[in-house]
Amino acid sequence: MPQDHPHPVELLVCTSCRAGQPVTEGQPVPGAALHAALMAQEPMDGVKITAVECLSNCARGCTVALRGGPARWTYVYGNLSEATDAAMVHQGAAQYRDTADGLVPWRERPVHFRKNCIARIPPIPEVDHV
Amino acid sequence: MPQDHPHPVELLVCTSCRAGQPVTEGQPVPGAALHAALMAQEPMDGVKITAVECLSNCARGCTVALRGGPARWTYVYGNLSEATDAAMVHQGAAQYRDTADGLVPWRERPVHFRKNCIARIPPIPEVDHV
Repeated sequence: MPQDHPHPVELLVCTSCRAGQPVTEGQPVPGAALHAALMAQEPMDGVKITAVECLSNCARGCTVALRGGPARWTYVYGNLSEATDAAMVHQGAAQYRDTADGLVPWRERPVHFRKNCIARIPPIPEVDHV
Repeated sequence: MPQDHPHPVELLVCTSCRAGQPVTEGQPVPGAALHAALMAQEPMDGVKITAVECLSNCARGCTVALRGGPARWTYVYGNLSEATDAAMVHQGAAQYRDTADGLVPWRERPVHFRKNCIARIPPIPEVDHV
């Protein structure tokens, strides 16, 4: 179940990704197709799927990022297939959602996530004064 | 000059990076050496250099990330040399600091940043209710 957390989890999907393939007129690019495949899955409580512009991982797309406010680690995953990976991404996103800090134990992560982590960013420290 | 911004800019430096090289006893790993080289430069107003654990860009290290609170894009840059890149990273960090949203015009970025952007993450939307 989702933790009681002030920031919802976002699954950011780069919808401009061409994944190194030529663009076919009338066909969605792979990033847009991945977004559609993720949206076609059963909705997840506490995870918002958001289409975003380029995540600058063009050499290893398709790409998603998982984040959940400043208290969680942010993760970027690449080399995703729009044809076969939607269910796996949902599984990984649900695991991430169920943490307070974004850290899913390594062995529990989907194998694809273990092998295709592009980068991660630590939580943002609280600002004492603004 | 730094903008009046509620969140300071952080230059995160992965100090565990081995950059694919064997570890030499008594020598800092390349990530730690890069951190030391960055700290040895003239301090920058409004940019805090922070040593962090693995940023999970091990295949293309050394690695830094630039972020400045939830209103700015976060950028990850890789393939950095601890021997030669400290001044260039400082320049890129200062340019980033001088933006409100983290977006430095492409042509103004250091060439290395243009060619070695590993990933970027959009700003975090404000939460309406907690």
